[in-house]
Amino acid sequence: MAATKTYLTGIQTSGMPHLGNYIGAIQPALAAADSNETLYFLADYHSLNTVKDPAKLREDIRSVAATWLACGLDPQRTVLYRQSSIPEVFELATILASVTAKGMMNRAHAYKAARDRNEAAGSTELDAGVNMGLFNYPILMAADILVMEADVVPVGRDQVQHIEYTADIAGAFNHLYGDTYSFPIPEGSYPEGQGSVLPGVDGRKMSKSYDNHIPLFMPENKLKKLIRRIPTDSTPVEDPKDPDTSVPFQLLTHFAEPERTDAVRKRLEAGGMGWGELKNELFEVLNARFGGMRARYDDLMAPGSELDDVLAAGAVRARERARATLAKVRRAVGID
Amino acid sequence: MAATKTYLTGIQTSGMPHLGNYIGAIQPALAAADSNETLYFLADYHSLNTVKDPAKLREDIRSVAATWLACGLDPQRTVLYRQSSIPEVFELATILASVTAKGMMNRAHAYKAARDRNEAAGSTELDAGVNMGLFNYPILMAADILVMEADVVPVGRDQVQHIEYTADIAGAFNHLYGDTYSFPIPEGSYPEGQGSVLPGVDGRKMSKSYDNHIPLFMPENKLKKLIRRIPTDSTPVEDPKDPDTSVPFQLLTHFAEPERTDAVRKRLEAGGMGWGELKNELFEVLNARFGGMRARYDDLMAPGSELDDVLAAGAVRARERARATLAKVRRAVGID
Repeated sequence: MAATKTYLTGIQTSGMPHLGNYIGAIQPALAAADSNETLYFLADYHSLNTVKDPAKLREDIRSVAATWLACGLDPQRTVLYRQSSIPEVFELATILASVTAKGMMNRAHAYKAARDRNEAAGSTELDAGVNMGLFNYPILMAADILVMEADVVPVGRDQVQHIEYTADIAGAFNHLYGDTYSFPIPEGSYPEGQGSVLPGVDGRKMSKSYDNHIPLFMPENKLKKLIRRIPTDSTPVEDPKDPDTSVPFQLLTHFAEPERTDAVRKRLEAGGMGWGELKNELFEVLNARFGGMRARYDDLMAPGSELDDVLAAGAVRARERARATLAKVRRAVGID
Repeated sequence: MAATKTYLTGIQTSGMPHLGNYIGAIQPALAAADSNETLYFLADYHSLNTVKDPAKLREDIRSVAATWLACGLDPQRTVLYRQSSIPEVFELATILASVTAKGMMNRAHAYKAARDRNEAAGSTELDAGVNMGLFNYPILMAADILVMEADVVPVGRDQVQHIEYTADIAGAFNHLYGDTYSFPIPEGSYPEGQGSVLPGVDGRKMSKSYDNHIPLFMPENKLKKLIRRIPTDSTPVEDPKDPDTSVPFQLLTHFAEPERTDAVRKRLEAGGMGWGELKNELFEVLNARFGGMRARYDDLMAPGSELDDVLAAGAVRARERARATLAKVRRAVGID
């Protein structure tokens, strides 16, 4: 029997997740947790590079943790912890920096994108607005992964470079210190096919940066209002409609039972079902699907909930792994 | 009465110090410790950027710590600790990176010097051979200083930029988070006048990089041999000699009593004292001055000496300060 592989996933702490995050990230991660050893961490120090408002950052972190738990993450099965609870990560990042070529970092996508934006804006200082947290991001991410000796890192296609960098940095370390200690080289695991992309209310990919998203746990009345405001054309109720170009219908297909979706499709194509009725249908489906989770989310977000205890317990388990790795790494480099 | 100021000094762990280090760094630091609150740390993670040999790094760290203690550092009075014992330093460096502009780092002297060397060598990749530890060095140094809330950092003139960078980074943090927590802005303290520069055996400034240095605690017979090999001209014993162009005489002036130096000067100028006799004189002075310290050094370097306990006790005291600072910083940024 093959040894169990450890899956590590970093979770952005950028506020309450939306329906697109649920389909694209949360649901697959919860499914993976059923059959693998999983470590999921809230990448709160990564957020610090962009969020300079402490109250917002604090709220965002709690909100993301509460969302994952409300969605069904079992903290007994999955080790759920905050990056900021693992001091070993930052010490390891310092060690990894000593074996990481700066030339490689110059070519990191997120950094290059920031320079390209400056160039396009006609700035003479291409590093304008770039902080060292952004520049060092690939090293910190490598430390996140390597400190846990993770085998597999499920990531989107746009994150391939991070896995390559982590493998390169680990390789450089192993080349120098492999007689004493070698990091396991992690593999990326990428979504098959195109992956599920959920449209936002304006038809583009659902994303906070487009402000076209539907937050997972909006209060019921706000959810209803938001769905009612999804733009639709003025086709009369009785006319036939194309479900495949309709945002509410596409959303419905992701959250309703197939039978229900099929019935709605037939009614739209035949004519006689208006956009208003479709939106009511979508609201009902979403409210039924997420209503229970929302109640759980609200409980977890209340002051004095078990949220902090759950994260603290996860941190204890995660630090055990991190401490063991760091001790081996320190011995290997001669700092012990 | 003014509040006591805290002096922080980083000590390079690049192997056994030499006579030049003793005059230029150790002696002034020991004098400062008599009248100030002092924290002295062994910058072992900085060394990792250049030393990739774990056995050498381990030995270098022990040797430097043993040297300072043998020279008279009182670990009851001065908090002596290893940088690598303070995990809070690395976490703080991560936080500071988020408020540090990359543009500023591009202009750091040590980094620019590396690029200039590549350019002079005709390399097309100016970042060749530069690792991210070198590039991040000013941030880690800022974290070393700020985590201890140090008021004064005694440094050489060539280190002025590091203090400026630390003040800039602290200022950027204070600007964003000053409502909740502000770092005290540290001042540099610079040697007055030209400072004491000790010549090496070849007459240039004594430095390991010139390989012209006299290690502090060489075994007696090796010290004697090294001094005998200091190059001198072939002026006969009976001829008058110029003490001021003589390396052994210049060394003597730093370590002998003024009366003894004066007597030697007169005999050299009058003629009748050969270089060999001068070198014997220098050996005797050095051996008398450092013989007792050498014995203490050898004891401390022996396996099972109290060296590790002294450093561990220093780390406990230093971490108390570091923990208190980091807790305030975390609260200020919203990671708590």
